[in-house]
Parts: sequence; structure tokens; C-alpha cells
Amino acid sequence: MAAAAPPPPPTPAPSAPTGLPDSDSTPVGHPLFSRIRLATPLDVPNIQKLIHQMAIFEKLTHLFTATESDLASTLFKSPPFHSFTIFLLEVSSRPFEKDSNLHSQNFTPIERIINLDHSLSDPEAETFRNGINGDAVVAGFVLFFPNYSTFLGKPGFYVEDLFVRECYRRKGLGKMLLSAVASQAVKMGYGRVEWVVLDWNVNAIKFYEEMGANVLPEWRICRITGPALEAYRDAI
Amino acid sequence: MAAAAPPPPPTPAPSAPTGLPDSDSTPVGHPLFSRIRLATPLDVPNIQKLIHQMAIFEKLTHLFTATESDLASTLFKSPPFHSFTIFLLEVSSRPFEKDSNLHSQNFTPIERIINLDHSLSDPEAETFRNGINGDAVVAGFVLFFPNYSTFLGKPGFYVEDLFVRECYRRKGLGKMLLSAVASQAVKMGYGRVEWVVLDWNVNAIKFYEEMGANVLPEWRICRITGPALEAYRDAI
Repeated sequence: MAAAAPPPPPTPAPSAPTGLPDSDSTPVGHPLFSRIRLATPLDVPNIQKLIHQMAIFEKLTHLFTATESDLASTLFKSPPFHSFTIFLLEVSSRPFEKDSNLHSQNFTPIERIINLDHSLSDPEAETFRNGINGDAVVAGFVLFFPNYSTFLGKPGFYVEDLFVRECYRRKGLGKMLLSAVASQAVKMGYGRVEWVVLDWNVNAIKFYEEMGANVLPEWRICRITGPALEAYRDAI
Repeated sequence: MAAAAPPPPPTPAPSAPTGLPDSDSTPVGHPLFSRIRLATPLDVPNIQKLIHQMAIFEKLTHLFTATESDLASTLFKSPPFHSFTIFLLEVSSRPFEKDSNLHSQNFTPIERIINLDHSLSDPEAETFRNGINGDAVVAGFVLFFPNYSTFLGKPGFYVEDLFVRECYRRKGLGKMLLSAVASQAVKMGYGRVEWVVLDWNVNAIKFYEEMGANVLPEWRICRITGPALEAYRDAI
């Protein structure tokens, strides 16, 4: 797809992320332990399922052709942040076990506790089990890659996809994913974070504006694809 | 800037590119020898001047801050096509000398002869002299980098900037630059070439549509930059 999926609507979540940096803090109510980490090739099956769900959500399954093999052969070819990069969002009802393998030089996983008023039922928990942390499941992802501003003379990040599974929406997790990308951009000295949104998706636009984004009204995307692109095979 | 500069308008050039593959062919009229090659760090001064001209053209000089140092420290960090990549357009009244240094494994320079009805005067020839090929000058550039479609499960190219200096417009050179990117995308098995255009630039839109592009009406660009981005430094 060409764009970030609509995020959770901007209505304040009843239990927004607490911002607690330490998962050992005592949670109250129904805690949802959440973690953002870099995806690896082992995550491809879950990523492929998430993308498929996004296509369904956007009623664009006729444009969805990506197989696990397609993804595995085109992602993870460069160090994180230098090319296509995926942050995976995992959630669990229990604290995540410390996993030193996840602490790469480039990125330390981000953990937050979200205190829910009610316990949460995930009808697809078995499908999205992460296989590492007991009951932890994959709840969403963001795919982004460097872009470049010649006016600034520096790179930025372009967010291609932002997706949170339905039962985990409206809990601040979409904001957490997008904030993780923005924070990484600042750390790297980058100048911008950009993505696209559908003009009729007023909830998403309001949400993004509240996050500090400007929506540029005049620019339109041009795309050459399919047979029209194929026609350039011997054009030059 | 966020987008490809408007290309030459779609009115047919009186002397379109001949498509002659061999610069030794006998030209007629006033031949303009043109060449597209990969830019190198040595081209940064000319690239910086071209970007500045683009900012003037777009009346956006207040957004232009890129110095030669900015560009030199952020470009040419990866092999061509894997990250930010620049095709440089050079023109000359004489055939280009064969330069084996320019034939990298990744890209063979593209040469075309454009037959003009009248000789062409370049008031900035001294400024944009390339220093290699006698009277050859730098006439334009295109900056592009890989993007990714999760629906296709494959990369594409995003064209950030396309610029041809004023005295060389309406001769098919913008089309030649964009075609070079599209052709490269096909060669690499990529699925799309994308860029953005201002919605009021009807000439550019018509030109792009004639090149096979679709303009997507509903998507809008969102951007976090400046202090709004800086606010994410410690947000996560």
C-alpha cells in the first residue's frame, strides 16, 4: 500500500499509555504490557498476516499480492534504519522477560504499561502468538525507511505503513509506534517524518495534527506501476 | 523540498530526443549531446547550485538551508540505488569522450543527441561547467531513493527532485531523466515509481499522465518537522 493505515481515532483513550519506563512498576487495573522492538526475518509470517489485515481494513485486497517469500527476499537486507525498517508491537498480560538479544546497538526496545479498565479479549491471539514470551502476541507494526530533503540537505523517515490490530486500537498504541519513529528520527539528526493520509479520513487527520503534523493540501502523489512501468524496460 | 519540480511542459518539443544510441552518429542542425550519469561527491557543488535554483523556481528559498557540507555528509553513503541516488544530466555541443570511469557495474551512462533548430545560449555555462569534457555543462538532475510497497512486497523508487535548468527545458530532457529512473526500476524488478506534484500544476500533471503515471486524488502528505519533530527527542 502507499500509506499509513488510519490510526486509532483521536478520542482520548480511557487508559492512555502511562509512560512508565520500567515494566517492574506495579500495574493497576488490567495492565497491558506493550513492547516495540525491531522486527527480524523470523517475524515475516506475522508481518505478512498484519499486512493482509490492513488490506482488508482498507478494502484493497485486490491490490495485495505480497507473499512471505516476497517479504523475506526484500526486507532485512540492510542494517536497521538505513533502509526498510519495521518496528513490531507486541503486547502481553505479563511483563516481558528481559531479552538481551533484542538490545541491538541500534535500538533498545521500548516498553510501556497500559492500564485498561477492562480485561481485553483477543480473538486472534493464537494466530499472532510471538512464540517467545508466553502469552505475548504481535499487535501491530510500523514500516518506515529513510527519505531525503534536498532543501534541508538531510535525511528523514517516510512511514509507509502504520497498523494496529482491531482489538488493540484506541489505546494509544498507534501513537506509541509513530512516536517511536519520530524519536528515532530526532536521535539520528534527521529533519522530517512524513507519511500520507486519505483526505476523507478526518479522524486520522485530527489525530496526526495533534501529534504535531502538518497536512500539506496541495501535493498529489503520482505513480507509475504495472504495465505502464514495464513499458520503460527498454525505453532508455 | 518534498517533491519533483515541475518538468518541462507537455507541449511537444520541436526537436525531441532522437533516441540515437550512438553519439558518433552524424548529427543534423544544432546537436545537443546529452548524457545521464551517476553523480559523485565531486558533483556536490553543482548539485547544491541546482537545488538552490529549484528553490528559487518554486519561490521556496526560505525553506532552503542545504550547504555543500550538508549534502556531502549525507549523500553517497551507500552504493547507487540502495539509498539516495542522483542521476546528473550533462550537455555539450560536442560528443562526450568515452570515460571508462563512468561505467560502473551498476549503471552505464545514457547518451542521446537532441537536434535543436537553433543553437542554444547558456548564460550560466561557466557556473555549471563540469570540468571534464571541454564545454560540457551540468543541466539538471534527478534525486531518487528506494521506497517500499507492503502490498506488492517489493521496493520501488521515490523521486524526490527532478530539475532541469531553464535554458534546457522543453527539449525532452526532463522526460529523459524520469525515464532513466523508471527504466532502472524495471531492471531491478521494482514495482513502482512515485513522486508528488502540486495540484495546480496542470501542465506537469498532463506531462506525467502522458508518461504513464496516475495521479492519486485522495492521499495527502503529513509532515512532522522542526520544533514539532524535536519535541519527540525524549518522547519515548
